[in-house]
Amino acid sequence: MGNRRQTIGIIGAGQLARMLIEAATPLDIEIALLAASPTDGAARIWPDVAIGSPDDAETVAAFARACDVVTFDHELVPEPVLSRLETDGIDLAPSADTMRIAQNKQRQREIFAAAGLPQPVHRISRSVEDAAAAAREIGYPVILKAAQGGYDGRGVWRIADAASLGEVAAELAGRDIAMIVEECVRLDHELAILIARDRRGGSAFYPLVETVQTEGICRQINLDRDIDHVLSTAAARIAIEIAEQVGLVGILAVELFDSGGRLLINEIATRPHNSGHYSIEAMATSQFEQHLRAIADLPLGTTERCADTAVTVNILGGSDGVDPRDRLATALAIPGVRVHLYGKEARPGRKLGHVTTLGDSIEECANRAWTAVEGLTNEPKPEGIR
Amino acid sequence: MGNRRQTIGIIGAGQLARMLIEAATPLDIEIALLAASPTDGAARIWPDVAIGSPDDAETVAAFARACDVVTFDHELVPEPVLSRLETDGIDLAPSADTMRIAQNKQRQREIFAAAGLPQPVHRISRSVEDAAAAAREIGYPVILKAAQGGYDGRGVWRIADAASLGEVAAELAGRDIAMIVEECVRLDHELAILIARDRRGGSAFYPLVETVQTEGICRQINLDRDIDHVLSTAAARIAIEIAEQVGLVGILAVELFDSGGRLLINEIATRPHNSGHYSIEAMATSQFEQHLRAIADLPLGTTERCADTAVTVNILGGSDGVDPRDRLATALAIPGVRVHLYGKEARPGRKLGHVTTLGDSIEECANRAWTAVEGLTNEPKPEGIR
Repeated sequence: MGNRRQTIGIIGAGQLARMLIEAATPLDIEIALLAASPTDGAARIWPDVAIGSPDDAETVAAFARACDVVTFDHELVPEPVLSRLETDGIDLAPSADTMRIAQNKQRQREIFAAAGLPQPVHRISRSVEDAAAAAREIGYPVILKAAQGGYDGRGVWRIADAASLGEVAAELAGRDIAMIVEECVRLDHELAILIARDRRGGSAFYPLVETVQTEGICRQINLDRDIDHVLSTAAARIAIEIAEQVGLVGILAVELFDSGGRLLINEIATRPHNSGHYSIEAMATSQFEQHLRAIADLPLGTTERCADTAVTVNILGGSDGVDPRDRLATALAIPGVRVHLYGKEARPGRKLGHVTTLGDSIEECANRAWTAVEGLTNEPKPEGIR
Repeated sequence: MGNRRQTIGIIGAGQLARMLIEAATPLDIEIALLAASPTDGAARIWPDVAIGSPDDAETVAAFARACDVVTFDHELVPEPVLSRLETDGIDLAPSADTMRIAQNKQRQREIFAAAGLPQPVHRISRSVEDAAAAAREIGYPVILKAAQGGYDGRGVWRIADAASLGEVAAELAGRDIAMIVEECVRLDHELAILIARDRRGGSAFYPLVETVQTEGICRQINLDRDIDHVLSTAAARIAIEIAEQVGLVGILAVELFDSGGRLLINEIATRPHNSGHYSIEAMATSQFEQHLRAIADLPLGTTERCADTAVTVNILGGSDGVDPRDRLATALAIPGVRVHLYGKEARPGRKLGHVTTLGDSIEECANRAWTAVEGLTNEPKPEGIR
């Protein structure tokens, strides 16, 4: 197992690649990076960077040939790239098939249904008429999702009535994108769980966390001391089953709805995930190190907690263009605030980084984290977040 | 305070520079590195590297002009380099004067004596006759130290009798190096404490730790739950006094002898120090982040513990040339072992990295750490270490 030096290639150079590099450095694991631009967040902190379009099959294939294993910064990898890497016999982790599932919410829904996993009532539709019939059957309001291409709330709509449905559905149908029409579940909490799976089918899972969203964008993640053991066990079972169903090698995040104490799968990501950033400080093995261990055929690390509770708050660019790099002192003056900046230029609404606080209570951790984020961005905590 | 983006220049690119970079990356602090070679440990993981001799005043001056603050990977910076940087008005942290003290054990002894700080009985000598007289007065065996140029046990000799003294003293006197002749104190433990001091004179200190040496080289560092509060308070007072006496900006390590419950200063280092590597995992703010905060005029971080006990064991290259990078899986299979490799080629006796374990008892932590290090180097734990 893994007692051989390997070069791990990362396609894409955003914040996930950046934090993978931060985890690789202490272990002296060799990383090769394919970045679209030298100013990408990960490219700015790493010497071994190839510049080229991660969407171009030739570019990616040439890059991958020099690597022992290739992984991804994001799941939006075009099919021609995936199939070219597969043809070339590149060791992809996660595999091309796993990536295809991660890219396609329709396939996810089908696989989860076949495995008997709990998810919202839904129908796959390809036409406006189909979608309208599905929505009538399920009952308004419904959630409409594009099967492919969405992230951070994009590609997901809450639809109140038939007129609104027609508009969105027509656009998607016109672009030949399949739709998922889903019940609008009563939402008590949004939750997430991480699982890592190695090349032998061994796995390690992380605690269930709460994610707090505004306008479809994750703003805060809570790792609570008090976990509902029933929910927690159910989530772990779901995560293990999904990891096997998608043939996972690496780390996977499952986003879940808690609807009246019933867990329903929202969606998955087969890579390190925003909901797991707390693990850098709060767990014995971060999601980034765990992903590297899994794909490099190294033993998975333990997933013990280093703190009773932890809160992560995302740093979104403020409306007045303040750059958090110029306000670091405000955040670092608050005790125990761990700041992670992603090396991006500040733009309103852009995810520029996150902060994590550890402590004894969610409320106290969240207070410190939000005070830091307000200082970094000059932007108040949004209403609707406790 | 520090609400302005700055470029921090680091002169030298060994493991301390490497771990400073690891601490700078999440904060997106800009680092410029001056490395003697592109294969230096820190140069291998950072894109912004100037290659040139850190001993050449012109090279260093040109490098420093592009930085807002300049700090050091090691204290062996030649006087012409220090004075050139001073003349050019470069913002050095620590300052040139602090560096001059760190380089010179004679000056340290004189400053500590003037401040009434506890240290071994000693005499400064410049000739063989002087040294012999001092040794007779103090009583054999004595410790003989070169005032300048030593590290990791080099430049320090335990001298049993007048004949041996003559040999070493003649060589040093011949090279015009001042000598310190010291009593050979009864040594119950060797201890170390870190302190950081900011540009306003504010400071933050770390817990007292035990360092375990073989042949003058630090092998193991113990952060124990149970600290002797009398010793601990005495060490903190010594550290605060030294930080002020040397005009510290940044982090400083004080190495201490515990001689029958009495603390005596061995020596100091005005930079991150091997005895503080445990702080990466075991403290809320690592010594590396703390050094960056202090020199970049950012608020000092809290120095709470993240664990009851922690043990760090250094990875020294084994006699059969095994490369720890090829044996990573053996160490990562042991629960909770945090591996830090420095990106160096394996050579017998060379410091290639360290591992840290956190837990409830020193014994248990040490067992796991040594098992990992034995696996990484194929070298048994040395005799004489419990």
